Amino acid sequence: MATPPLVAACWRRPVPHTPVWFMRQAGRSLPEYRAARGSGDVLAAISDPALAAELTLQPVRRYGVDAAILFSDIVVPVHAIGFGVTVEPGRGPVVAEPFSSKADLGRLRPFIPEQDAPYVGEAAALVASELGPDVPLIGFAGAPFTVASYLVEGGPSRTFARVKSLMHADPAVWHALVERLADMAAASLASQVRAGASVVQLFDSWAGALSPGEYQRFALPATQRVFEAISPLGVPGILFGVGTGELLGLMAQAGAHAVGVDWRVPLDSARARLGPRHAVQGNLDPAICLAPWEVVAEEAREVLRRAGRATGHIFNLGHGVLPETDPGILSALVELVHAEGRAGVLPR
Amino acid sequence: MATPPLVAACWRRPVPHTPVWFMRQAGRSLPEYRAARGSGDVLAAISDPALAAELTLQPVRRYGVDAAILFSDIVVPVHAIGFGVTVEPGRGPVVAEPFSSKADLGRLRPFIPEQDAPYVGEAAALVASELGPDVPLIGFAGAPFTVASYLVEGGPSRTFARVKSLMHADPAVWHALVERLADMAAASLASQVRAGASVVQLFDSWAGALSPGEYQRFALPATQRVFEAISPLGVPGILFGVGTGELLGLMAQAGAHAVGVDWRVPLDSARARLGPRHAVQGNLDPAICLAPWEVVAEEAREVLRRAGRATGHIFNLGHGVLPETDPGILSALVELVHAEGRAGVLPR
Repeated sequence: MATPPLVAACWRRPVPHTPVWFMRQAGRSLPEYRAARGSGDVLAAISDPALAAELTLQPVRRYGVDAAILFSDIVVPVHAIGFGVTVEPGRGPVVAEPFSSKADLGRLRPFIPEQDAPYVGEAAALVASELGPDVPLIGFAGAPFTVASYLVEGGPSRTFARVKSLMHADPAVWHALVERLADMAAASLASQVRAGASVVQLFDSWAGALSPGEYQRFALPATQRVFEAISPLGVPGILFGVGTGELLGLMAQAGAHAVGVDWRVPLDSARARLGPRHAVQGNLDPAICLAPWEVVAEEAREVLRRAGRATGHIFNLGHGVLPETDPGILSALVELVHAEGRAGVLPR
Repeated sequence: MATPPLVAACWRRPVPHTPVWFMRQAGRSLPEYRAARGSGDVLAAISDPALAAELTLQPVRRYGVDAAILFSDIVVPVHAIGFGVTVEPGRGPVVAEPFSSKADLGRLRPFIPEQDAPYVGEAAALVASELGPDVPLIGFAGAPFTVASYLVEGGPSRTFARVKSLMHADPAVWHALVERLADMAAASLASQVRAGASVVQLFDSWAGALSPGEYQRFALPATQRVFEAISPLGVPGILFGVGTGELLGLMAQAGAHAVGVDWRVPLDSARARLGPRHAVQGNLDPAICLAPWEVVAEEAREVLRRAGRATGHIFNLGHGVLPETDPGILSALVELVHAEGRAGVLPR
């Protein structure tokens, strides 16, 4: 059995074509998603294994992407242990009583996936069984810094003032917080791998808010802890963030096999900063997908050119699919990447 | 009469001490600001020359910063010609009928400062007269891309999807739009210089949302147009943006004398990317100012160390002062920079 292209790309092995998937490929841009999901709470949808599996599979059916990613949210583990997190439509995760001091560590007990959120593994198993061996399922977890930012800020933030204040003012509590979140992320990813995921992605979406010094001191160690913990499972890991141009050299030390970058850093520059031991994932600007197809196609070709012919490129957007995206554009993108992407192509 | 330190730093000449000011130094963090401003509309406050001058002067009195910056907003010119812009508290500029096509160019007639917004020059003249020759007034304008982003999106955006779609789909209309905005910015800055401003800063706050290719094609030319237009006035110009790590090499071509960078790029890296012909401004993270003073002091010293002993460093935050900042911290920061900042210090 051949290794699926996405998995091979993570290992920087030759592939039959450049693999492609889209962050938030299961989402509001799809009419079948809106029909299946309705207007209910996203955490409720995630806790319904059949529904979560269906939403995970929809974009594979429609687009023919090279991977499914489990329909989930970065706050699932903290929600499941009762920290008090909701996800507000159009806003994001909101925490009623934010984490503010050492005493709040007591609210973060270990996360036991099979007990606290059995639906995650159940959904992953349903998806893996449906997909079969040719299309991999990507396991999903939030990175410690980004999850912590919601717990401390109480919701989405533009300035990250509270979280930065806490990390600088009380590094011991900060490190205890992100270590617990690292263990929760690792436990969740391990349960997804046991259920059939063959790649994992750690979302550190807001890491780019940190200075390089802050990232090194306050985010990288806990991120390393996640990848170290899951390393024995033998599946490749992808580390993703937005606005991480200054951080790529440090992110290369996290233990991931591939690093996702947004559209701000051309992939040849990203490769130079990451070094030769990492695959790259990205990096078409999701906003470009709202432009006419000729523009999308030209920008996608530029991504492929910048990624080069070396092995180890996973085509993706630089951030999630925007809800107003025309699914037809994404279908055409998959076709273009499969036809024209030549990264590490097998000799014919 | 000696050249004020901030002006000298822009020209990369020796200074008696590293000059320091803070973006949004006139703002909600000051009790005297809240007292003078009340809860009225910010555009109304800007159009009251005595009030705008008072708000401009307050931080100079309190902090002893090396410059005043005119209390203004980047949408003042487009508001003044009747494009239909309001500024919503806690949200920012909002446009009732966003710019969407060529026909909207007709809504952007030339801005004649003395007729359309005489209060800007009047406020600048009041401030300059009060400050005298030792403390410079910085003129204020929004850069074409950032102003255009509000006009096209209709308000603040996280994705800039509409503005990117427009620039790619209809480059001719886009260039016509930003050229008009460039001429308006240049006219506004020129009027402020005539009224007594001796430095200008062009705020391209959201430039960092663009890829390097987009910045070069869609933002840089109009930015160059602003600095070219005001070049005969002989005052130094500062170009500021957030998240611009990948753009600094291009921003060095804009015609500014100094470039402001945020905390993501250490100033030694910023200098390397900008080359030797530019001063740098920045770059303490405003969120750090909410941490205990020892943390603020250490981070400020790190900024000074990274800026080095070469001439041409203006100490500032990497973005505006956060409303919850303790003014005492900013006072202490000014003292620290004046005592310890040694960038291009005059031989004693």
